[in-house]
Amino acid sequence: MMNSESDDRNLPQKISEDIISFILDNHLKPGDRLPNEAILAGQLDIGRSSLREAMKLLASRNIVTIRQGSGTYVASSPGLIDDPFGFTFISDKKKLVQDLLEIRFLLEPAIAAMSATYSDSGDINRICSLCDEVEELLKTKKDHTQKDIEFHTAIAMGSKNLVIPRLIPIINSSIPLFVKTTGNVLKTETIETHREIACAIAEHNAVKAQDAMYTHLMYNRRCINKTYE
Amino acid sequence: MMNSESDDRNLPQKISEDIISFILDNHLKPGDRLPNEAILAGQLDIGRSSLREAMKLLASRNIVTIRQGSGTYVASSPGLIDDPFGFTFISDKKKLVQDLLEIRFLLEPAIAAMSATYSDSGDINRICSLCDEVEELLKTKKDHTQKDIEFHTAIAMGSKNLVIPRLIPIINSSIPLFVKTTGNVLKTETIETHREIACAIAEHNAVKAQDAMYTHLMYNRRCINKTYE
Repeated sequence: MMNSESDDRNLPQKISEDIISFILDNHLKPGDRLPNEAILAGQLDIGRSSLREAMKLLASRNIVTIRQGSGTYVASSPGLIDDPFGFTFISDKKKLVQDLLEIRFLLEPAIAAMSATYSDSGDINRICSLCDEVEELLKTKKDHTQKDIEFHTAIAMGSKNLVIPRLIPIINSSIPLFVKTTGNVLKTETIETHREIACAIAEHNAVKAQDAMYTHLMYNRRCINKTYE
Repeated sequence: MMNSESDDRNLPQKISEDIISFILDNHLKPGDRLPNEAILAGQLDIGRSSLREAMKLLASRNIVTIRQGSGTYVASSPGLIDDPFGFTFISDKKKLVQDLLEIRFLLEPAIAAMSATYSDSGDINRICSLCDEVEELLKTKKDHTQKDIEFHTAIAMGSKNLVIPRLIPIINSSIPLFVKTTGNVLKTETIETHREIACAIAEHNAVKAQDAMYTHLMYNRRCINKTYE
């Protein structure tokens, strides 16, 4: 009953794959404009309405961005969609929080060490100022979720590993769940460990950065485990 | 110039989000059938052609599967698409191989340890028979890429961590690149270390499983680094 999915491999799907090949073969970069509809339809030897439908599919996969009246562009992070892991569809949120934390333990201390080793002055400025912003929000009891995500993202970007930015959704999707669970309990600990991480990266001290991130995650795990006892 | 992406947040996009909410609110599971078009359009208070367009978007994101003449179903792994990380669009394949390996070093030894701890007899049977199949293919000089992917996937599934199956594309997309790079050079080492991993998991020995996976990745790293010297 649930076998063949070949019905889905319809024409727009096939054309959208041809467009992906076109983007790759022509080395188009994020933000580059694709040829206009008439030209591209001609090159791919297809009708304009089929092309339009295929472009909508690619837009929904964040491969292209369609700007009405302007044209179609390669998306800024092509192929990277919201919730690429489909976490929305995991119903056991309690286990999800714990399992996400388990993965963050595997990744983030090492990412912090890489960031301390490879981040440049631009990364460091960004990490330190986000650290300040999160601290300010925590002290004034405002929602720090978004800035907290940006802080961890900036650290990940400093690693210079091509795959790590693609793993950021794991961190991003877990932070709101963590903040919700740990509330303001970890205010002092968050401020202190964030500061330690940022300073260690700024000093290019990989050992300290790794330890500080580990300590940060430990506080979170203790707090989350207590909540679920 | 590259700012507002609001053009994309058009009606089909909005409706597709309503359908996602419908799936979640009604606790529909993978393979479950959605209500027919007329009923669903009525419930969401929208036109049938808008609904149809939104469903196509969801199909392209692998959230639903449309079967002509049968109906629309929740996809088997909803939200998990081919190449969710957009690796297709990373052009520096040499750095990609090395960076993927770096991430596999962070994840896979720990995953092997979790698998040794939590895998059930079904997982273990699957891991051991895939180990046999890969060995047979290697010995007869046939392409083992697909079975190698299945072997590492079976280990990941044995971990029982909800997030790990979602990370499998990292492993899967790196194996063909590795096989291509390491060729048949690592035949004996692959057979031996795969066997060690499988036996350690079967014995529920987390320490041995972690070590064996580490050794396996080490052979790959050495070989890859030599290739790129």
